[in-house]
Amino acid sequence: MTVRKLALIAFTGLLFTALGFGSAALAETPTLRGTGDLGIIIERATGQVIIFDSTTKKALFTVSELGDLSHASAVFSRDGRYAFVFGRDGGLSKVDLLTGRLVKRIVQAGNSIGGAISQDGTLVAVSNYEPGGIRVFDSTTLAPVSDIPTDSKVVGLVDAPGNKFVFTLYDSGEIWIADMTLPHSPKISRFHDIGELPYDGLITPDGHYYLAGLFGEDGIALLDLWKPEDGVRRVLHQYGRGEDKLPVYKMPHLEGWAEAGEFLFLPAVGSPEVLIVSRIDWHEVGRIRVHGQPVFVVARPDGRQVWVNFAHPFNNTVQVIDVPAKKIVYTFEPGPAVLHMEFTPRGEQVWVSVRDKDQVNVYDTQTFNLLATIPAESPSGIFLSSRAHKIGL
Amino acid sequence: MTVRKLALIAFTGLLFTALGFGSAALAETPTLRGTGDLGIIIERATGQVIIFDSTTKKALFTVSELGDLSHASAVFSRDGRYAFVFGRDGGLSKVDLLTGRLVKRIVQAGNSIGGAISQDGTLVAVSNYEPGGIRVFDSTTLAPVSDIPTDSKVVGLVDAPGNKFVFTLYDSGEIWIADMTLPHSPKISRFHDIGELPYDGLITPDGHYYLAGLFGEDGIALLDLWKPEDGVRRVLHQYGRGEDKLPVYKMPHLEGWAEAGEFLFLPAVGSPEVLIVSRIDWHEVGRIRVHGQPVFVVARPDGRQVWVNFAHPFNNTVQVIDVPAKKIVYTFEPGPAVLHMEFTPRGEQVWVSVRDKDQVNVYDTQTFNLLATIPAESPSGIFLSSRAHKIGL
Repeated sequence: MTVRKLALIAFTGLLFTALGFGSAALAETPTLRGTGDLGIIIERATGQVIIFDSTTKKALFTVSELGDLSHASAVFSRDGRYAFVFGRDGGLSKVDLLTGRLVKRIVQAGNSIGGAISQDGTLVAVSNYEPGGIRVFDSTTLAPVSDIPTDSKVVGLVDAPGNKFVFTLYDSGEIWIADMTLPHSPKISRFHDIGELPYDGLITPDGHYYLAGLFGEDGIALLDLWKPEDGVRRVLHQYGRGEDKLPVYKMPHLEGWAEAGEFLFLPAVGSPEVLIVSRIDWHEVGRIRVHGQPVFVVARPDGRQVWVNFAHPFNNTVQVIDVPAKKIVYTFEPGPAVLHMEFTPRGEQVWVSVRDKDQVNVYDTQTFNLLATIPAESPSGIFLSSRAHKIGL
Repeated sequence: MTVRKLALIAFTGLLFTALGFGSAALAETPTLRGTGDLGIIIERATGQVIIFDSTTKKALFTVSELGDLSHASAVFSRDGRYAFVFGRDGGLSKVDLLTGRLVKRIVQAGNSIGGAISQDGTLVAVSNYEPGGIRVFDSTTLAPVSDIPTDSKVVGLVDAPGNKFVFTLYDSGEIWIADMTLPHSPKISRFHDIGELPYDGLITPDGHYYLAGLFGEDGIALLDLWKPEDGVRRVLHQYGRGEDKLPVYKMPHLEGWAEAGEFLFLPAVGSPEVLIVSRIDWHEVGRIRVHGQPVFVVARPDGRQVWVNFAHPFNNTVQVIDVPAKKIVYTFEPGPAVLHMEFTPRGEQVWVSVRDKDQVNVYDTQTFNLLATIPAESPSGIFLSSRAHKIGL
């Protein structure tokens, strides 16, 4: 369970504009090559993405004119060739990792908060703050396929098995499941009264459980997608309890939860702790004191380590938890403003964006040695094409 | 936890011959495309592999002259472009999925039983029956890197986190871990007295546990790779107990174990049952009566379903277990001699080889509808390039 997207809190007017085929990046002859070791780095300040190769640990292309990427996220086509980048300005950009070209860009709403790709790879969905709802596009052409209005800001949009999208309505406190079996007439299931002001959502890596974090009250709303007829129940009643109420933008992103063996590791709300929760019964089984307020708590793919970064003013630091020992085994300072961490799929490397150093650092996760540094202007999210093969990513 | 390889039981003499650049298949202009949805089908009778695209559900190339593929298996380069095919005759073939060419083929031993690729993608290892031991090759050139003689047939070779290979010695009853940090001088850890005649091994999908099945006695040998200093212990003491001793070639392949949520599903030995075992404490928690002696018990990637095929004379049938209900929910007959099942990484399709119908059938895993049929001569193993991103595959 790693980062899906970075949430955003802003409101602007609606634009629904197809910009058509966008500008190409560095003009190079496309090389015949595999796409399994490619990835992108979001350059938040310049509206660009860097395409890189995790085998050579080098940048291949820079792709420009993707709009406002200050809290962007991405998903990948099922063949691993294309990245779909969701921008803050409602932009949806399709980037070709092999040619370094912006294939197409549309501005599909005034303000968006991330997206998802369907299990079968044919549909890309974007969740919107303004005007709310989700919009679904053909992943080949980016032509509109269907709109699902909600009369509410939408958060926590994910894909789920059965070609479904699952998402949460912030204003009305609901979870919706959209079954896209008939893409032009989605079948919607609604779950009301899930709790006050759900601000984010996530799906477990197996697609079994959907969880929504609540800003207006303590606890987490849990929907068992294998038994939706049982409805939404509340778990982790203490989550957020006993702390001063934080502004919503300081609430930890749920995508920063880590699954490791039988445990989930998640950031505490408003305190310098990582909570350990049983995956079986959703009860808290322990806490680990960490360097600051955790932002992302990410498991190495083998679940042996959990890496943690922190909110300002502790955001120059990363800590590594050894899962069996449930202790911090390594603390280091990659540099100012560590925003994101992405593991290679078998876990031998981790890519760390260090925004205010204008670089991405690549570390060996076993020795913690720095393997490479990639220059990047204010890098934020890092997304590998192997996400194409993961439920909910 | 899906199929890694199909075991073989045979002995021939040693050949260590580099055949150099092999024959090309259908000559077509290579297309610039992603590799994330490519896979191969082993044509066991003809020494060929078919390269297919799981998005269009069509064959792209046939690659010939791969030697004896009667029990072949494959792993993939970390970029997803190349398949490394391990043949029964000790052949190691590197196939380019984009061009349909046999890039290189070597015959590295007289008789081999499968292989693995290292976590970092730089090393391909092959385990041998004759002369025993494992041989390690550079994944780019197939040049020899190191030999690890064992004075025993080697089974159950897998990769593990930390650029390790783990494997089992049939004759001497040992498990070895080879740390390939220095590829030319592997560091070996040996575990003796693991039990009598271990015939196969597997690693859990997170790389945490290595298990070896025992032909000479009941139970399973378990090594916790997070605590190797604790040594090998015995679990599932009843595994194989109460049955007549089977010939080793009738023992179920351990690669046919399925992990679904907190449970493992595995074939019983010599009886028409699937065993359900707790992932937490390795105790049996239940059994499901099935149509025949199960061969492969494979979980859909979301863990909601477990698919089972069977030994002769019930090998025309496939059954589907619903995991929460722990019941068979679907039984059907794809055709004579169902040998293998491979799920697409998000689980929406399953590819089923039907050897004696000379075809591979593609099913929708939710509706069970037949989506496509691919002609193939005596198809056996099916391997998708997304395995490149999985520990132990």
